[in-house]
Amino acid sequence: MTKVAGCPLCDAAGGRVVVQAPKWRLVHAEEAGFPAFYRVVWQEHVREFSQLSAADRSDCMDVVVAVEQALIAQLQPAKVNVASLGNAVPHLHWHVVARFAWDSHFPGAVWAPAQRDADPARLAEVVAQLPTLEDRLRRGLTRTP
Amino acid sequence: MTKVAGCPLCDAAGGRVVVQAPKWRLVHAEEAGFPAFYRVVWQEHVREFSQLSAADRSDCMDVVVAVEQALIAQLQPAKVNVASLGNAVPHLHWHVVARFAWDSHFPGAVWAPAQRDADPARLAEVVAQLPTLEDRLRRGLTRTP
Repeated sequence: MTKVAGCPLCDAAGGRVVVQAPKWRLVHAEEAGFPAFYRVVWQEHVREFSQLSAADRSDCMDVVVAVEQALIAQLQPAKVNVASLGNAVPHLHWHVVARFAWDSHFPGAVWAPAQRDADPARLAEVVAQLPTLEDRLRRGLTRTP
Repeated sequence: MTKVAGCPLCDAAGGRVVVQAPKWRLVHAEEAGFPAFYRVVWQEHVREFSQLSAADRSDCMDVVVAVEQALIAQLQPAKVNVASLGNAVPHLHWHVVARFAWDSHFPGAVWAPAQRDADPARLAEVVAQLPTLEDRLRRGLTRTP
């Protein structure tokens, strides 16, 4: 595994680890206002998604899709947002975020300005479901390379 | 092909069409400040990426990857950003955007607030390369389903 000095995703997990696999990890990100914000981080320091082999790209997107499906099944979000940006941290990672019509930024992107305060009770309802969601993710994803 | 009344991506192309394939289209988006902003739009009205079959997901990401690779080869961007959000228009489309250290929002997301004015001369340099980039895309993508 090639580590790049000073890369935050080589040096640390980048969130609370939910599943650790040989080639990737799934972490829960602590992003205020977005309780169901996960990241699929590629273990190897790769800059762009297109630099992965076709087989690795397929495995990586299978994980992203499994996370998306679990978010939908558990939380019934208004939409799931999936993004690989990496401008600040150019180490391949996919953001996978459950979005709700009542959240602070909807329908804007999570990186856009907030449009309202999210209802703390609704945020807490989502947080309360994360253990069940993450059990589901662990069961589903341990079959993936 | 199922069309959904009132869906902007069922009713219209959503940009200048660069490649039209049976299952998807590649369009150039007119987004101020981001001259190399493309979208891969799925033809069928599908809400979430994970609702595609595995074969369609693979084909769709092959197109996204081909666009990313062409952007890198032609424009040498600082980073390529890839995202499927769809909060406002829940019809599957992938944003594929070449980002530059000098652009108005870098390293922020294109949906975040601007950090500076982009240099018009540098924007014009990118615009001048789009015909060559798009010839490359048409050649590369006509082999994809």
